Amino acid sequence: MNGVILSMPLDMHLHLRDHEMLEVVAPLTAHTFSGALVMPNLVPPVKTRDAVIAYRKRILDAVEGHNDFEPYMTLFFDASYDKAFLQELRDDILALKLYPAGITTNSQGGVAHFDIETLRPTLEAMSELGIPLCVHGETNGFVMERETEFMTIYARLASEFPNLKIIMEHITTQAAVELLELYENLYATITVHHLLITLDDVAGGLMQPHLFCKPIAKRPQDRAALLDVALRAHPKVMFGSDSAPHPQHAKESCGCAAGVFTAPIALQLLCDIFDRHDALENLQAFVSTNAENIYGICPAFKEVTLIRQPFLVPEKYGSVVPMYAGQTLPWSIGSVQ
Amino acid sequence: MNGVILSMPLDMHLHLRDHEMLEVVAPLTAHTFSGALVMPNLVPPVKTRDAVIAYRKRILDAVEGHNDFEPYMTLFFDASYDKAFLQELRDDILALKLYPAGITTNSQGGVAHFDIETLRPTLEAMSELGIPLCVHGETNGFVMERETEFMTIYARLASEFPNLKIIMEHITTQAAVELLELYENLYATITVHHLLITLDDVAGGLMQPHLFCKPIAKRPQDRAALLDVALRAHPKVMFGSDSAPHPQHAKESCGCAAGVFTAPIALQLLCDIFDRHDALENLQAFVSTNAENIYGICPAFKEVTLIRQPFLVPEKYGSVVPMYAGQTLPWSIGSVQ
Repeated sequence: MNGVILSMPLDMHLHLRDHEMLEVVAPLTAHTFSGALVMPNLVPPVKTRDAVIAYRKRILDAVEGHNDFEPYMTLFFDASYDKAFLQELRDDILALKLYPAGITTNSQGGVAHFDIETLRPTLEAMSELGIPLCVHGETNGFVMERETEFMTIYARLASEFPNLKIIMEHITTQAAVELLELYENLYATITVHHLLITLDDVAGGLMQPHLFCKPIAKRPQDRAALLDVALRAHPKVMFGSDSAPHPQHAKESCGCAAGVFTAPIALQLLCDIFDRHDALENLQAFVSTNAENIYGICPAFKEVTLIRQPFLVPEKYGSVVPMYAGQTLPWSIGSVQ
Repeated sequence: MNGVILSMPLDMHLHLRDHEMLEVVAPLTAHTFSGALVMPNLVPPVKTRDAVIAYRKRILDAVEGHNDFEPYMTLFFDASYDKAFLQELRDDILALKLYPAGITTNSQGGVAHFDIETLRPTLEAMSELGIPLCVHGETNGFVMERETEFMTIYARLASEFPNLKIIMEHITTQAAVELLELYENLYATITVHHLLITLDDVAGGLMQPHLFCKPIAKRPQDRAALLDVALRAHPKVMFGSDSAPHPQHAKESCGCAAGVFTAPIALQLLCDIFDRHDALENLQAFVSTNAENIYGICPAFKEVTLIRQPFLVPEKYGSVVPMYAGQTLPWSIGSVQ
């Protein structure tokens, strides 16, 4: 096939940041996606209705001209939220995002102890109001085991709150793929970079700061498990880029920040991956339909045509070095309407 | 104890590089060590008697004034060497260093296939001449498994050539520690950084290019196994820093070169580690006596006194950022005589 049409592409896990960075990166996503689930880990985190509304407005200002782009907002999870509080902003958000404390960029105010009884009031309110819970599922254990160790927490949450939709964000392990099958109310997002790289790409040859992210890329057998469910567009998985821009100096320095920037190349890469595995017929479900069904959303019309034509990835977008900077990808964005 | 005297410290695995870098780093080692086994992975690699002699002279020129420092020279292993060739340079070298092809910095000309019959003539000549074989033991498999996968190659070499002393260089795994016990002719060097860090320190928080090395730091249980044999100065293990300087720009960039620079802080760090584990009485064996016995060497007299006094690690030595740059260590070099 030399052309692929994707309807209403959705990026169900996206970091847009704020201020100047927001201005640079938001239009890149708004160009090719109908909508994106926007992460709330700003400084300070997005924890009130006013903050949600104000952040949404800044995003819409930054993507001016892209009226067909919907920023689906999230609220930074806190166990102090009660039902009345959540009810009031129910229509302003699509989900709550839970971070273990200190686990990744700007997550210091996250959950320090996964004590179910402490979390119960908020999670029960969410169940009743039908608000999904998105989770960054890592412990603070050994870096290669953090996600696998978190599986017992996912299992407890899923069984204690059977009416709560729980999305395991940016899964990177075979263990997470296997857990999907065990609980009806567990779902997952998968990034494009975790379909492509393992720890070998990050630290096997030269160390590559622009491929360093959290959760870190794992073993070949983990990547194979992710590819398996993505390529057949398993109905419980959906695309979420976790595209996470940092200025170049924060990546190429003495201590490199976590995050891979893929927003402007994600669809081109996905097209290549699905094409190489003879699975292009499942790409629509992976980048859109599954998310529509899981979240019950109906995005604005947009059609993106990808064509088999070389695309030279820019060295930078503003101050941000994207994945595969300076390399040529086999698929390009042809047209958007 | 507030002071420790070490006699004839030896660093049995050291990268001194060449030219300007050699001028910067060689005096730092010559100041506190009686001798060091110098790696031959220059560009081009050190593969002839003339190259050994010329490199040794450049090192001695670089450490002028330190007449009590001996650079123990190595030859870059090649299966084309015959006994006559090795016999001629027997007195100019202490060991041969074998690199799998392309496994680390400047190792492109290493061994591509571990076919015992191809290696046999050279390894038998080395056995007969009593020349030890130092090996960078990694496969080209998944980065966390490369050393463990190499254990079958070590086992074959050790059993096929029982009279050849084989040194497993810079071991990083529990598997390598266990193999030490299985073959009489297997020995090992251990770096100071692998006694201190795991992959968590390299890529668990921010990614730390100055802690990135090959073999990469492994799991907590691997570090525990290394600490166990080092702290009791197991007679088959010895200190080898694998101190590997790169200019700052080659570490803090888009692709970070492998190597941790520890030469000027190694004794201070070792003193702290052995002190914290109540094992200072074994430090002399780990940093000198074991190596003297394994290699049958008798280094020039030098006594280094370490004192419990804070040492602020410089931000740089020339263009090289050391491990723990800008941090304060609890032990200092007191005096050298």
